[in-house]
Amino acid sequence: MDRFYNAPENVVDEILGGVATTSPLRMAEPESGLRILIRKEWDRKDQGREQVAVLSGGGAGHEPAHAGFVGEGMLTGVISGSLFASPSVEAVLAAIREVCGDAGCLLVVKNYTGDRLNFGLAAERARGEGLDVAMIIVADDVAIDKAPQPRGIAGTLLIHKLAGYLASQKTPLDAIRLQAETLCAQMGSMGMALRPAAQPGQDPAARSPELGLGIHNEAGTRTVDPQSADEAMRLVLDPLRLQLTERQLSGPWIVMLNDLGGCSTQELGVLADSLLRQLGVEQVAHLIGPAPLMTSLDMHGFSITLLSVQDAFVTALTAPTQAPAWPGLKTVAPPEYFTPDTRQDRDSLSDNAPQDEGVNALLQRVIDTLRQAREELDALDAKSGDGDAGASMRSGADSIAAALEARRLDTQALPSLFAGIGQLLSRDMGGSSGVLLSILFTAAGAALDRHDTLGTALAAGVEKMQAYGGAKPGDRTMIDALVPAIEAMQRGESLPQAAQAARDGAKATAALTQANAGRSAYVPESALKGVIDPGAEAVARVFEALASA
Amino acid sequence: MDRFYNAPENVVDEILGGVATTSPLRMAEPESGLRILIRKEWDRKDQGREQVAVLSGGGAGHEPAHAGFVGEGMLTGVISGSLFASPSVEAVLAAIREVCGDAGCLLVVKNYTGDRLNFGLAAERARGEGLDVAMIIVADDVAIDKAPQPRGIAGTLLIHKLAGYLASQKTPLDAIRLQAETLCAQMGSMGMALRPAAQPGQDPAARSPELGLGIHNEAGTRTVDPQSADEAMRLVLDPLRLQLTERQLSGPWIVMLNDLGGCSTQELGVLADSLLRQLGVEQVAHLIGPAPLMTSLDMHGFSITLLSVQDAFVTALTAPTQAPAWPGLKTVAPPEYFTPDTRQDRDSLSDNAPQDEGVNALLQRVIDTLRQAREELDALDAKSGDGDAGASMRSGADSIAAALEARRLDTQALPSLFAGIGQLLSRDMGGSSGVLLSILFTAAGAALDRHDTLGTALAAGVEKMQAYGGAKPGDRTMIDALVPAIEAMQRGESLPQAAQAARDGAKATAALTQANAGRSAYVPESALKGVIDPGAEAVARVFEALASA
Repeated sequence: MDRFYNAPENVVDEILGGVATTSPLRMAEPESGLRILIRKEWDRKDQGREQVAVLSGGGAGHEPAHAGFVGEGMLTGVISGSLFASPSVEAVLAAIREVCGDAGCLLVVKNYTGDRLNFGLAAERARGEGLDVAMIIVADDVAIDKAPQPRGIAGTLLIHKLAGYLASQKTPLDAIRLQAETLCAQMGSMGMALRPAAQPGQDPAARSPELGLGIHNEAGTRTVDPQSADEAMRLVLDPLRLQLTERQLSGPWIVMLNDLGGCSTQELGVLADSLLRQLGVEQVAHLIGPAPLMTSLDMHGFSITLLSVQDAFVTALTAPTQAPAWPGLKTVAPPEYFTPDTRQDRDSLSDNAPQDEGVNALLQRVIDTLRQAREELDALDAKSGDGDAGASMRSGADSIAAALEARRLDTQALPSLFAGIGQLLSRDMGGSSGVLLSILFTAAGAALDRHDTLGTALAAGVEKMQAYGGAKPGDRTMIDALVPAIEAMQRGESLPQAAQAARDGAKATAALTQANAGRSAYVPESALKGVIDPGAEAVARVFEALASA
Repeated sequence: MDRFYNAPENVVDEILGGVATTSPLRMAEPESGLRILIRKEWDRKDQGREQVAVLSGGGAGHEPAHAGFVGEGMLTGVISGSLFASPSVEAVLAAIREVCGDAGCLLVVKNYTGDRLNFGLAAERARGEGLDVAMIIVADDVAIDKAPQPRGIAGTLLIHKLAGYLASQKTPLDAIRLQAETLCAQMGSMGMALRPAAQPGQDPAARSPELGLGIHNEAGTRTVDPQSADEAMRLVLDPLRLQLTERQLSGPWIVMLNDLGGCSTQELGVLADSLLRQLGVEQVAHLIGPAPLMTSLDMHGFSITLLSVQDAFVTALTAPTQAPAWPGLKTVAPPEYFTPDTRQDRDSLSDNAPQDEGVNALLQRVIDTLRQAREELDALDAKSGDGDAGASMRSGADSIAAALEARRLDTQALPSLFAGIGQLLSRDMGGSSGVLLSILFTAAGAALDRHDTLGTALAAGVEKMQAYGGAKPGDRTMIDALVPAIEAMQRGESLPQAAQAARDGAKATAALTQANAGRSAYVPESALKGVIDPGAEAVARVFEALASA
């Protein structure tokens, strides 16, 4: 299975069933075989006396169109066909009968032959029954130059919103139709796709990227070969703007960026940025989307609709609506920037810091130990992780060595020294272990500042390490060597005794085959058996270096 | 190019640039190298005195998370890393400094090591500066049984909403953290995917469908092989419900259906329907989505989050927010059905209809002609369309023949006969031509009812055909034979003269290589040269049959 479908023939009814269960809609009973969804509270004899009912629909496969746009302030109801196929005349007529009151009914139809004919015959029959029905045919696609019958695509949604708003304002049917025609004359749309749609149960056709697509998987007007999102956007915008300029239309624009079905949110974000850059922020009054609005199943492409901005359109399009899929209009303005506060308020590094030769010698011994241990630690790590534990420890050691040589670490005052080491490790060591050791030294330094003993301060640091790192003793991490060593110090034992405790703790990790934290949590048990955790090994070596001084 | 990206290394900054241009946010200046987005109007010294600031963030690649959830009533700001990588300690600290006032700051962190550590160290440093910072770690993933560190995935969004609502109500920091912990304890999430994510510029890994995925493309807990959307949904729901039952949690649930990035809206619709059916409508108090909310780039999969419903949660989650990507909660209820009104009010077919033997004979002649012409018409059609024009005409003829035999057509009264034929063709003939001919006969029948002459009535019908069908003379359709024949009748010419006019019109279509309507509009000119349009040919034959009687 390569897509989440059940039986292909049930796709439309499953989708509509879900919509009807989660929206305030009423639905034609399934036995009728008709797919009609109407606002639950709409009563043609009540609201329908004063408000025009707005119906739309067409083939399915364009979700969230059309059912997602039913709601107060937008569509009164929709009639759905099967995938990419127009609903029957009977279905359209039944929907008209359900919603049309004294104020009449507007049919919003995308300019495809099947929709024109079936909605048209239904309108003729409804008129024969004395109902006041008007029809607007949306033909916003500019892909085919001088097309006698331009297709109706994503721009249709703007007519849904305009007509729904006007209807809610009790505008008469003829006036709504005229305003809708005015809007139609002010907009154009254009689509492109990298990959066509695939019907449920079928493989997608192998086709080149195409420009000028409709929404029924018909071939585009030409194949293209864009090398970037920017180029794809330009391929769409250039002919679209040219066509609109020929119609004497100009910006600022209301712009809709419609996912034809297969774009990720990340791609849509990149495309939106490209669109805004290429049109220029000052030429975009409002942005609608990016979102899947009028899709063509999973077609991996997008369409752009440009509408020349007018106050009346903005009023209608920004008015609130209950339609769940209407994304609203975003106001576009150049980003506002601030300067992030990255000062090191409590900088523990300084120039010409006081030096204690004894402490310097101890630090140098630890640095040498870690530098020499690099290859062995990497080799241990390679058995359970990505083999860079030694390199990472060495980076930390190098950072401290450089600061020591430059006399930037105050080695006469332990609180300041620990805080400085914390700062260096966070900046230069990298990886989780760098941050963890930074937390250890930062918290221990703060504790020493509060006059804790060295053992107690280190214990406070290790506690924070565990809280943020999530590891506890026995989880096969450096904690397994740190905790026993620090506990020994707290008991007042000597450094060699603490080093022995660290070594014992490190050795014990070789028997821990159930790692619960850190990278080796994702490694099979057999690969861990007999292997000392490289972090614990490093800790043991550091304590041994300190003890042997 | 197989996806809409520019340079892979620019993806995150392009996406955030687009967001900052279309949302009321302020952004860390690009030169800082930090990716921080904050509510534009937020002032830590103003709102921040009384309202807790809520920060979240983490790696990028989860869009619309996290920037899409910034806004009044939800997040105060976000810190973004690069794709799937945690932001730096420096960035988190700068964000805390930007938003944290006297009321304090809550960090909402997904339980991944990098995020825990970097947000944790930043929190420690901020506390060192005297700021009141708390942290909540979300660990909603139940995929790994008894995991010591369950991952934080889509459920994190519920914490964003809860904390943002409570902050807007001026709830103190500790109380928000406690309520967030309560919510965390009441929910679980589980994901599955048919195809893993692909980093920009890289191909997706070839992996089997997997269950129990995180949001960083790490492998799932096991491979699966679902054969349908229903089975995929069951694979997710069964272990999820089991885990929640073990934690003594039960429905009704607040349910979130999250697209991990690569699902079409149609698949999401099918999955939502499946989810509602499998959980049972009465066990779903509210549905969030389906929508891409916490994605993993273009991973073709979904996740389900179940939260045991509580009034306090519903209040917080349904409260309004300005965050653009929050989809709101849908109320779930069994669909309400209505009986569509499909009565044939003006039924022109009846039992034991009056019969005129002469008219019957004429009709039979037309029926025979169309039945015999089937193969020739199909062959003509195959050169410009899908080769079913003859079959379609024959279906119409068969329908009329059956009604004639059953004496259901009133052949004594032309208005009624035409209306009846219109009804039959719409119901039985199918295709565009069936509806077009139905429009012709329906409108002509209505005109005859108004005592128009036969010629004038047919002209009215042909006019409607053109209005809805969009074809005009010269467009290579049946209009090219119909219009001259009907014009001849209107001039009072004989049937043989009308038939000759139809024949001349049909012949002329062979020279029309620029089709503007109907299917042959999509066929290259060379394929049309010398080929008579099958619809026009059928019309000519019908008139010839009538004339030869």
